[in-house]
Amino acid sequence: MPNIDPARLLGDLRRLADFGRYKTGVHRPTYSTEDMAARQWLVDRMGEAGLAATIDGIGTVIGRSASAGPRLLIGSHLETQPYAGWLDGAMGVIYGLEVARAFRDSQDCRNLAIDVGAWADEEGHYGSMLGSRSFCGVLPEQEIDQLSNKMTGKTLRDALAEAGLAGRKREVLPDGRYLGYLEAHVEQGATLDTSGQRLGIVTGIVGIYGYRFTAIGQQNHAGTTRMAARKDAGVALMRLWHDIDQRFAEVTGPHSVWTAGRMVLDPGAPSVIPGKAELLFQFRDIARERLAIMDKALLELVAAADARGPCRIETEVTARTEPRAMDPALQQALERAAEARAPGLHTKLQSGAGHDAQIFAQRLPAGMLFVPSIAGISHHYAEDTKEDDIVLGCQVLADAAASILRGRAGSA
Amino acid sequence: MPNIDPARLLGDLRRLADFGRYKTGVHRPTYSTEDMAARQWLVDRMGEAGLAATIDGIGTVIGRSASAGPRLLIGSHLETQPYAGWLDGAMGVIYGLEVARAFRDSQDCRNLAIDVGAWADEEGHYGSMLGSRSFCGVLPEQEIDQLSNKMTGKTLRDALAEAGLAGRKREVLPDGRYLGYLEAHVEQGATLDTSGQRLGIVTGIVGIYGYRFTAIGQQNHAGTTRMAARKDAGVALMRLWHDIDQRFAEVTGPHSVWTAGRMVLDPGAPSVIPGKAELLFQFRDIARERLAIMDKALLELVAAADARGPCRIETEVTARTEPRAMDPALQQALERAAEARAPGLHTKLQSGAGHDAQIFAQRLPAGMLFVPSIAGISHHYAEDTKEDDIVLGCQVLADAAASILRGRAGSA
Repeated sequence: MPNIDPARLLGDLRRLADFGRYKTGVHRPTYSTEDMAARQWLVDRMGEAGLAATIDGIGTVIGRSASAGPRLLIGSHLETQPYAGWLDGAMGVIYGLEVARAFRDSQDCRNLAIDVGAWADEEGHYGSMLGSRSFCGVLPEQEIDQLSNKMTGKTLRDALAEAGLAGRKREVLPDGRYLGYLEAHVEQGATLDTSGQRLGIVTGIVGIYGYRFTAIGQQNHAGTTRMAARKDAGVALMRLWHDIDQRFAEVTGPHSVWTAGRMVLDPGAPSVIPGKAELLFQFRDIARERLAIMDKALLELVAAADARGPCRIETEVTARTEPRAMDPALQQALERAAEARAPGLHTKLQSGAGHDAQIFAQRLPAGMLFVPSIAGISHHYAEDTKEDDIVLGCQVLADAAASILRGRAGSA
Repeated sequence: MPNIDPARLLGDLRRLADFGRYKTGVHRPTYSTEDMAARQWLVDRMGEAGLAATIDGIGTVIGRSASAGPRLLIGSHLETQPYAGWLDGAMGVIYGLEVARAFRDSQDCRNLAIDVGAWADEEGHYGSMLGSRSFCGVLPEQEIDQLSNKMTGKTLRDALAEAGLAGRKREVLPDGRYLGYLEAHVEQGATLDTSGQRLGIVTGIVGIYGYRFTAIGQQNHAGTTRMAARKDAGVALMRLWHDIDQRFAEVTGPHSVWTAGRMVLDPGAPSVIPGKAELLFQFRDIARERLAIMDKALLELVAAADARGPCRIETEVTARTEPRAMDPALQQALERAAEARAPGLHTKLQSGAGHDAQIFAQRLPAGMLFVPSIAGISHHYAEDTKEDDIVLGCQVLADAAASILRGRAGSA
């Protein structure tokens, strides 16, 4: 069996958190100086582990094993959300590196191959899962031409050029090379932490439908415009949001979630009737049929609000990812490995967050393993996981990888 | 009778609009370079008109007549809202200047005295009606120490120093000097324009009650946090706003207006549950009792929302001005002058916007005259009034001023 090295694993995770350290977390946006330094550090560390490593034209770091045996791909991402946690993404990448090292150091795993990927911009500073989509062949050059940083407005092309990546080849997933894709991640929710479970085997990743609603009214003076004469874009969107709040209580499923993350009234002054208003709304579910029901109910409410007036309501679809099931055989391998190392302390659960695994699931059998997030805190510098859980998760991932590669090798 | 000079009046208004010109309007924030240049221009123009003029320690321009006869004060403001209209405030100031000139040029008005004021920061870039409050003795030094620009954060003290006003004396209203205060203004609403009336005699100025509501929830991941576990500050304020929207339809009067001008969800990202949210809300009415009813209903809804949870709701009072009646004798003088110049084309109405006249009304008989705003457009660079109406308004103001000064002079 492969034996991971807890000190080496934790040491690398701590070293990686130095790149862009912020309080107890990390600020490492995609293609920032700190992010590129972290990618170069990873290339070096992969080289020391015997992997042939490179940074490709979209910023993805990929390290390939020299072994000729059956092969698995393990990965996650290096960049972080703004002022966020030290483990989100980073842990899954270093797990891959540590599993590759444990295989190299293990007499009976040395012939099995672990390739490791750090997929660029999973966190979506510029786009949506650019690295894994590029690797899986679903990121056209034309989309790269059009994308820009959502906070700063810098174009993706400029960012790639400044990072020294312009003109570099983008690596692609070869057909038939891998038996599957594995990704480990912090849960980002409180299911494991509150139930005392130490490991989560992911059954599927939710689909996300996102919308920008814009109400167009008439800006005017808040003191001199009679109520009956107003076209208040803020009131129009508040009423729509309230309608959604009420209706979604009826049409959603037990695991559905829905969120209005942003509302802007224009011009946003206390004595001015908003002439324009914007609401960002999204919902998620694991069931494609449920997503369709919610989408239909939502668009009916928007159409009714638009027809009611006095403001027009415009709809823009900002996200539409379909739910993806994880491979049953990989789930079983992860579950058996979890049961062997932590009997009764693991559970199956769905992922409410998006992950690169949902991109790979369209090409390969894919599986995901979660470790607990303390208090469920995510996308915040206070994000953390107990050291024992970090170590346990990596060992279980290594065990599962070995059993997958051996099982398939044995059946070949 | 005093005869105003239409060409001189319109010429001065057009010249004043050069200071901070923006498209067809003006951008002239309080104490900006353009604003201070406009104030200096006004001082010079007042001097040419025979008024002893100065800029005082809060930026107010005051020009005093050398006549020894009974005295009226006429004024308004020079600064504008951002990228706003050319007449809002400016017209009332230049009316004062033109009336003073018409009196000087009139054989039978020469002994009557018109003082003219341009009160600083009526538009509230730093505070609320700083100039008129300072002049009326209700702006303590301590408040000046604490105020800062609502957009840029620059302290009022720094702004005054940069404008060369630090340490300069603040002028004050002497008891018994004036028979009253008159202010002319564009209506800022569509009552006159849509009814075909050319003049409005203001009966009173509404009171304004303003609030900042802050909901405190728990920021978390929009994909991984179950609906039942959420403390969504945005949803909390949306529901409160909806409650207000429903309840106010019952408790408000026929002339009440209420507005939510700004809502901010924090951090404002599509995939993050807002941990904090802010709503700016205000309402206005001419009746003090109505304002009390609305205030009570509002605070009951807030208390209920706070008690219901899961978010706490905090309330800050941001504005509380009481409604002010205009002086009946001054209303009558304005109405008679309007009837003489534009028979049947004037009406009485209340002001839904705040004006310096509401400050003066606490010390002096005060009266206001409105001219039509084309299509009711206000606080926008498209604001405008027909030239004939601008000229008519000034002549009526001059006639009313003469009759007020003669009437009181006659009864003395």
